[in-house]
Amino acid sequence: MASLTSRRSFLKAAGVTAAATLTPWLSKSHAASSDKPNVVVVFCDDLGYGDLSTFGHPTLHTPNLDRMAANGQKWTSFYAAASVCTPSRAGLVTGRYPIRSGMCSSKRRVLFPDSAGGLPQSEVTIAEALKNEGYNTACFGKWHLGHLPEYLPTSHGFDTYFGIPYSNDMDKLQRLTLDDQLDPEVENYNVPLMRDEKVVERPANQHTIVRRYTNETIDFIKEHKDEPFFVYLAHNLPHIPLFTNDKFRNTSERGLYGDVVEEIDYGVGKILKTLEELNLDEKTMVVFTSDNGPWLPFRTHGGSAGLLREGKGTTWEGGMREPTIFYWPKKIKPGIVADMGSTLDLFATIASISGAKGPDDRVMDSLDLTPTLFENKSSPRKTMFYYRGTELYAVRKGPYKAHFITELCYQEDNNRQEHDPPLLFNLDHDPSEKYNIADEHPEVLEDIQKEVEKHRADLEPGEDQLVKRIE
Amino acid sequence: MASLTSRRSFLKAAGVTAAATLTPWLSKSHAASSDKPNVVVVFCDDLGYGDLSTFGHPTLHTPNLDRMAANGQKWTSFYAAASVCTPSRAGLVTGRYPIRSGMCSSKRRVLFPDSAGGLPQSEVTIAEALKNEGYNTACFGKWHLGHLPEYLPTSHGFDTYFGIPYSNDMDKLQRLTLDDQLDPEVENYNVPLMRDEKVVERPANQHTIVRRYTNETIDFIKEHKDEPFFVYLAHNLPHIPLFTNDKFRNTSERGLYGDVVEEIDYGVGKILKTLEELNLDEKTMVVFTSDNGPWLPFRTHGGSAGLLREGKGTTWEGGMREPTIFYWPKKIKPGIVADMGSTLDLFATIASISGAKGPDDRVMDSLDLTPTLFENKSSPRKTMFYYRGTELYAVRKGPYKAHFITELCYQEDNNRQEHDPPLLFNLDHDPSEKYNIADEHPEVLEDIQKEVEKHRADLEPGEDQLVKRIE
Repeated sequence: MASLTSRRSFLKAAGVTAAATLTPWLSKSHAASSDKPNVVVVFCDDLGYGDLSTFGHPTLHTPNLDRMAANGQKWTSFYAAASVCTPSRAGLVTGRYPIRSGMCSSKRRVLFPDSAGGLPQSEVTIAEALKNEGYNTACFGKWHLGHLPEYLPTSHGFDTYFGIPYSNDMDKLQRLTLDDQLDPEVENYNVPLMRDEKVVERPANQHTIVRRYTNETIDFIKEHKDEPFFVYLAHNLPHIPLFTNDKFRNTSERGLYGDVVEEIDYGVGKILKTLEELNLDEKTMVVFTSDNGPWLPFRTHGGSAGLLREGKGTTWEGGMREPTIFYWPKKIKPGIVADMGSTLDLFATIASISGAKGPDDRVMDSLDLTPTLFENKSSPRKTMFYYRGTELYAVRKGPYKAHFITELCYQEDNNRQEHDPPLLFNLDHDPSEKYNIADEHPEVLEDIQKEVEKHRADLEPGEDQLVKRIE
Repeated sequence: MASLTSRRSFLKAAGVTAAATLTPWLSKSHAASSDKPNVVVVFCDDLGYGDLSTFGHPTLHTPNLDRMAANGQKWTSFYAAASVCTPSRAGLVTGRYPIRSGMCSSKRRVLFPDSAGGLPQSEVTIAEALKNEGYNTACFGKWHLGHLPEYLPTSHGFDTYFGIPYSNDMDKLQRLTLDDQLDPEVENYNVPLMRDEKVVERPANQHTIVRRYTNETIDFIKEHKDEPFFVYLAHNLPHIPLFTNDKFRNTSERGLYGDVVEEIDYGVGKILKTLEELNLDEKTMVVFTSDNGPWLPFRTHGGSAGLLREGKGTTWEGGMREPTIFYWPKKIKPGIVADMGSTLDLFATIASISGAKGPDDRVMDSLDLTPTLFENKSSPRKTMFYYRGTELYAVRKGPYKAHFITELCYQEDNNRQEHDPPLLFNLDHDPSEKYNIADEHPEVLEDIQKEVEKHRADLEPGEDQLVKRIE
């Protein structure tokens, strides 16, 4: 049975001591660290573009995130680095398209419990860059960038880790139908919960997991209130199977999915309140976003991409555009930003405010968004490349998006279609990608083709990490 | 040619003096009118559920309406009385399903320039009820409830009227293709602009029409600042053909449609500012909504229903659910209301705050929403009946909506389908109407069937006004 194999493999792996954290290019900085701002990134799993009230959901109520959006910047064209978990997260922590680090594959879409690969030590994470500036760094939640010791958060620049190392629907103890997964039992998912490199609970009690990640974040903030800190709070929900604690169960008009998202929203409120109470709110940038679009085959247990087409696993907008909020009172100018941004840009943006340096020996895809955040200037991001695995499916430049290949979700009957000429949409006018205007704009297609060539000129795909399996 | 016939008929009709305004059941009230609150209803034409930034549009910026929503109540399940202009407006002004007044038909969907019918004098409008309480009443914009004198606003309780009497795409001087209408010329639409009962401009210069309606509203407010007033500001845009003035042309990221909606938003901002400057803001309820969903066949010149299915002309949610805001500083409790409401309810709600009385000799479908607006109580509206013409297509009760018949837009190939058993959706969990759950909830279908019987028991369809044509 796959689940037993993977369980054994995992336990064996978890016993090994973690490798050293710092990569060779980093040397300790002498900057005074106490003036540096703090950063909290709240990252959801499979949250849809349309799942916050401030992004238009009629029955899902997210008052804390709405308030963050109203008093911060709501970014309405902000992209995950990929349409599924592993590559999306690799892009966020490295500031590089996941194909460069080998964190996407033509064979497997994400890492599984039997995977032997992970984010290579040669990659530099934002946590490592911040460590070099004296930051205290923590990762709470889902990692999904490798669960062997050398790939865990504590081997990639995080002082501490508490969470599950891959998706919350993995390590199934038996074959589960789609319907089984809509009425889930914690016991059916033998997912480990880890503290640093050790498994501390298995299966993880997912009913209380949002609250526990939130509380870990709050405790970490309190503990490091006088020093700069970086928290990467990567909730493993609302990825199915959906769990929530009794306080939230059956409270949302949106049903169980709403209960879960509203619990996450409540947790965000608690974190903001903590920052205020510690007088850290004006010294802390809080970012909220998600890893990819909603998982539509799970019907109402998946989220909603709002007005966007399709969801998770696709390179339609619903697969990669995320409901995103930047919040930093008195520093970030409140408003709505329709310019492009990406989780790829968090590296350069956080580096910019912290004085951290990214590596200069490799191609980075990360752009500093602070001119937009602090001065309302236009975003430096003018293009976005939409990969599925290692294949480039679509490219956006300015308002125009060309699809070379389209494919629905990631089921067997995935309906792959190649388009020549590509489909072309003006996303500013037609965010739902309904009206193909390729015939009217051959010059735009040519221009996008040039961007593709430029992108490919410096592209060296990393060694595929997703195909490696534990023997 | 139809357009010439209608033009002649119209001019002949417009010369006749208006009939008396007050209906027999009304007698002058002795209440002191100066304490009464003012009411401004801003009503759009074909605005989609997803077309305000506060309802989730990524590139359409509506800062004034967003502020109204943040400081007022944003209603996310608020319905127009029908999915096309004429019956929708009849429902709003009378508080009765349009089938009762004969303002819908199995033959024609709306009134046209050759129509001889209109809202019967026997109907009581909210303006008439307010007149009886000493209100000054004005209608600015599109009427579309009859353009013969006895049907005009000044014959239905409005002291004054300035606007176009039917849709802005009527009176075409030549046959226009869909593409012609996307790049429109004012001269191609020989629509009359009226002051009270007289045509004052023809064709109406639609480039300046949003600004003019807005300024008329502001002037009326200033003129009546010491007396209670009611303004029904029914913009004839963003119905196609789209026009805007030079100040807004090519300014919106959303294109021409965005220019138009952003001009309307700007006008709302000016009206709110006027109320503040006159110290009337805390004495005035402002309501914003639209007559039906977006006109999808016009591609990016039509709006977006956001996450809702389909648009104008259909009884899917995108056809009748409208982006709605109630605003009254210090009186309306700010928040988001997912409970049901309808333009049908404006009559009873406005009557409730003004002391006006509706007629007691007929069935009313209007419910007083003030307990929700002022006290956060649950909405009194528990059911909604979705008509297409005179046929009942769907019924919502609580979160459940049953479709007996569905049909796409209102083109020739309208794809009518009857459903037995009906389709059933839980709109709270599934606002996009994707997952039919009829099989799982036969008891809900039975319950809805009982509501249909109850509804039909007191239903006396009015004489069809839409089939009448000028000889």
